[in-house]
Amino acid sequence: MDTRARPAISGRIGALRRKLVEAGLDGYVVPRFDEHQGEYCAPHDNRLAFVSGFTGSAGVAIVMRDRAAIFVDGRYQVQVRDEVDLETFAIEHFYDAPLKDWLRTNLRKGERVGFNAMLLPSTWDADCGQSVAEAGGVWTPVDEDLVDAIWTDQPEKPLGKIMAFPVAYSGESVADKKRRIAAMLAEQGADVLIEAQPDNISWFLNVRGRDVAFNPMPHSFLIFDRHGKTEWLVDHRKLPNDLSGFELDDVAIAEPGRLLARVKAMTAGRTALIDPGFAPSAAAHATRAAGGTVQLARSPITLAKMHKNATELAGFRDCHRLDGAAWIRFFAWLEQNAAERDASGRPVSELEAEDRILAYRQMDECFVEPSFRSISAAGGHAAMCHYAATNESSAPIRTGGVYLLDSGGQYLTGTTDATRTTAIGPVSDEIRRAYTAVLKGLISMVTLKFPKGTYGHQLDAFARRPLWDLGLDYDHGTGHGVGHFLSVHEQPQRFDRRVNAIELTPGMVTTIEPGYYKAGAYGIRIENQVEVVDDGDGFFSFRSLTLVPIDMRLAEVELLTPAERRWVDAYHRRVVQEVDSMLDSESLSWLADRTVPIAG
Amino acid sequence: MDTRARPAISGRIGALRRKLVEAGLDGYVVPRFDEHQGEYCAPHDNRLAFVSGFTGSAGVAIVMRDRAAIFVDGRYQVQVRDEVDLETFAIEHFYDAPLKDWLRTNLRKGERVGFNAMLLPSTWDADCGQSVAEAGGVWTPVDEDLVDAIWTDQPEKPLGKIMAFPVAYSGESVADKKRRIAAMLAEQGADVLIEAQPDNISWFLNVRGRDVAFNPMPHSFLIFDRHGKTEWLVDHRKLPNDLSGFELDDVAIAEPGRLLARVKAMTAGRTALIDPGFAPSAAAHATRAAGGTVQLARSPITLAKMHKNATELAGFRDCHRLDGAAWIRFFAWLEQNAAERDASGRPVSELEAEDRILAYRQMDECFVEPSFRSISAAGGHAAMCHYAATNESSAPIRTGGVYLLDSGGQYLTGTTDATRTTAIGPVSDEIRRAYTAVLKGLISMVTLKFPKGTYGHQLDAFARRPLWDLGLDYDHGTGHGVGHFLSVHEQPQRFDRRVNAIELTPGMVTTIEPGYYKAGAYGIRIENQVEVVDDGDGFFSFRSLTLVPIDMRLAEVELLTPAERRWVDAYHRRVVQEVDSMLDSESLSWLADRTVPIAG
Repeated sequence: MDTRARPAISGRIGALRRKLVEAGLDGYVVPRFDEHQGEYCAPHDNRLAFVSGFTGSAGVAIVMRDRAAIFVDGRYQVQVRDEVDLETFAIEHFYDAPLKDWLRTNLRKGERVGFNAMLLPSTWDADCGQSVAEAGGVWTPVDEDLVDAIWTDQPEKPLGKIMAFPVAYSGESVADKKRRIAAMLAEQGADVLIEAQPDNISWFLNVRGRDVAFNPMPHSFLIFDRHGKTEWLVDHRKLPNDLSGFELDDVAIAEPGRLLARVKAMTAGRTALIDPGFAPSAAAHATRAAGGTVQLARSPITLAKMHKNATELAGFRDCHRLDGAAWIRFFAWLEQNAAERDASGRPVSELEAEDRILAYRQMDECFVEPSFRSISAAGGHAAMCHYAATNESSAPIRTGGVYLLDSGGQYLTGTTDATRTTAIGPVSDEIRRAYTAVLKGLISMVTLKFPKGTYGHQLDAFARRPLWDLGLDYDHGTGHGVGHFLSVHEQPQRFDRRVNAIELTPGMVTTIEPGYYKAGAYGIRIENQVEVVDDGDGFFSFRSLTLVPIDMRLAEVELLTPAERRWVDAYHRRVVQEVDSMLDSESLSWLADRTVPIAG
Repeated sequence: MDTRARPAISGRIGALRRKLVEAGLDGYVVPRFDEHQGEYCAPHDNRLAFVSGFTGSAGVAIVMRDRAAIFVDGRYQVQVRDEVDLETFAIEHFYDAPLKDWLRTNLRKGERVGFNAMLLPSTWDADCGQSVAEAGGVWTPVDEDLVDAIWTDQPEKPLGKIMAFPVAYSGESVADKKRRIAAMLAEQGADVLIEAQPDNISWFLNVRGRDVAFNPMPHSFLIFDRHGKTEWLVDHRKLPNDLSGFELDDVAIAEPGRLLARVKAMTAGRTALIDPGFAPSAAAHATRAAGGTVQLARSPITLAKMHKNATELAGFRDCHRLDGAAWIRFFAWLEQNAAERDASGRPVSELEAEDRILAYRQMDECFVEPSFRSISAAGGHAAMCHYAATNESSAPIRTGGVYLLDSGGQYLTGTTDATRTTAIGPVSDEIRRAYTAVLKGLISMVTLKFPKGTYGHQLDAFARRPLWDLGLDYDHGTGHGVGHFLSVHEQPQRFDRRVNAIELTPGMVTTIEPGYYKAGAYGIRIENQVEVVDDGDGFFSFRSLTLVPIDMRLAEVELLTPAERRWVDAYHRRVVQEVDSMLDSESLSWLADRTVPIAG
């Protein structure tokens, strides 16, 4: 961040501290979360950036009258020191030295810490509350957000238009979804579901929206009871006047500001199921205030949505053909231009490449928008797992360096996410060995056959082992769930070293994305999106959805086993079969070159 | 069990129910646990067998005035129906429908359930107590065990002699162990450790004993405070008069019956660390009664003992050479005799084979006893993972069937546990394919290199994958910790599908034992004991301790990769190098035949 912004930040901290005094508080929690616990937040909700200057996508600050700290994860330890005033903020680690620990050890007896219970999920509320209590302090929700109160030019909440998402795409009517979720509530002994997750609500009501970039769903709240009563708390300005295309006949619509009043009305004397990690703790407070019982549990919508139905899966397969064609056109263009332009002094830039694959995707009418900010990263930039090129940073794609593109699209038929690593011209043996290990990890994982009852953390190491054999590893998960024209990072299943409590089962869509990163030098990642399929007799396996050739020029083919080579060839044959009808002759010629069999 | 015993059992149930009435109870819990939560219990402690007739090694019964249930795990679902009176006992599943669930759903309001708090660990006490409370009942400890009260011919508690285990074998003095454990207690904020696990106490005091077969350690209790004060509650009759070889100068010795009085005296106003899974909940009750605070946590001795020191590791390597020689002599004998004797109508029996490997082990003076009841299993018996041959069941080892031997020894220098599967003459292609997959699983696991911070549940699947590829699996863990001249199954690390919270670190000793079992037909298991070693740069790997050739005649060598074949040859070279000086010429000749290189 431009250091000229710092005086503004300093004034904001002063204003916030005056608010603390007015409110009789000693401190206030400023999270990056919005009311919907999404990965991306609207400018309206980026209170953390407003208060601290930190622009990363995850973090939280605590501002006391006489001290302050900001908590960011490993990705942002460098960036945060560039962006925030280090005399105002101590820098802490989001996971290793979290806010709850800070509160336990740094709070003085009697200090009162305020928070906005619409912005914190129940787990945070409970953990921080316990720490504050242990420190002899007071943990207290505020009625009005203190940052909003000093943020005179706070952007408005987004008002992205909402559209119906017909059963032809979603594969299941709202009526059927209601019946399923009602049965799940009944089974858990809950009466009412209070839901704040935009993807869950969009899935449930068969709608889509556009409040936040890359996330085709509206911000809203939902209250659903097991007898079918449904209230959707959504800004009516986002809805068209004519709702005839929607399935909202039995859905009462109210303004989002009425959430807590409606929670109280719907939960008095009843049991409300509230997701402890993804719903505002204010909903739990309101339930208890109304004399209701809170059941903290994963939302049944999360558990229903994770299994894609036949229509959704067919849509995924379809949009991956479109997406594969865009990738192939992109690579054909890159290869035709990159070396020549580099030699003539006008190399292709990271941003230009990012724009180019977007343009190819936009050629199809099913394409809506990117599913996340592409990581278009040349050379050392590729070692930063969450790099996003800017006008200042956008580097040339030069001969001899690797180029990593992690990119995906939101299509009406599904959401894509893939990564390929390539290079213009030959690369070093070191890079080739690492690339080969990453490829072996992908193949090992994609070719797994595993029994019912298997969890992601049991399989994660298959993607790492070829790197482990070289004494290497990568510091991120191996794969995440993907939504259906929803979030590209979708709960709850994942492949990770950390334990994940969700059994892998057919109909799940996830990524598999091993990588290797050498800081300042290069980064490698190869990512396929896959579906979990039934393999018969109680066993499951994966089937690749992604249809993009893997650059075998960077691999040491002689280090691949015969079975691995056969897998590469079979995969490339599939790519050609499924995509070639959509390609021009130049792209076809590139594809033929890049998919020459290697099994011999 | 012989059905003639049933009238006796029925009389016991009647007597127990009269005791219930006398004690003002409606039910009583009869666990298989003893006061030390060991896997094996002394005849004195097999209250479950006395009451129910069930002779398996794990289970629990609840006897109410008008109904009763017994809970056993998957291994014993058949056996329990043979052994117990099905009109008296409902059969339930130990894990899938456990006692705590039964109490919640079957108890009537107001019913009082008694239990012996010396026999239940705190987790059981808490879980069952909560269920009883939810059912509106009363959960109450008794002063005297109700089964003991009716068991007129109850065997005496064992009085196995205790011996000193010198530092030359243990590698660390009691004084040093005291300092380490005291520091761990201090770090956890605990003042006193109350310990009931025989292996932990034996490790801590550098003693060994012989109260229970296969388990070279005495039953006793230990109270240790972080200032070094140590009380050992052990029957003095088990100790020699002359304690000069022991390191017991600063250890106060008291009778075990004084445990709760001493706990009260040592914990008043202090914090006692009590293992929730492996110490009697009576110790926690006594601490609270004395005004002390209970900290339920894994014993620090468990966490210290899991890392074997240099002396212990050298001992392990040493005893595995002795053990390997015994295995090789055994197999040479078996091969020389089995086919011929089968042909002549006097085949070798399972029990004879078990006796024979014991005899070869007994040739060494370091050998003390078997480390568990050998599984000497021919044909279909090998499909039963916990088979133990009896005079009635002992089957002939016939030409054409597999023979599985899972066997180990207690040596002064360490504890061994290995499994090999062989056959007299050729076996079917089906068996060969399964054997090859099991072998591939073993090799995959043994050759792993993995980073610091890895847990057993992340690696378990490497041992299973070759079986998964065939649509097969095995329904047990992949490996368990092994004690040093202590329990052959040692907490806390393990390889399993289930989550295990202990990082794998150098100095741990575990087994790796994939298998495949086809009920009624055959069973295959290949098990090596390994140590975790430092591989440099933050990576660890395994090194086999077991030195027993793997029967490659049962494997489809052409299905092994070149790397797998090289591993087999390198392993066999090591076996020959380390063991051949201890062998007679006939065994040497057998060894040479069985270790012919296969890599070509």
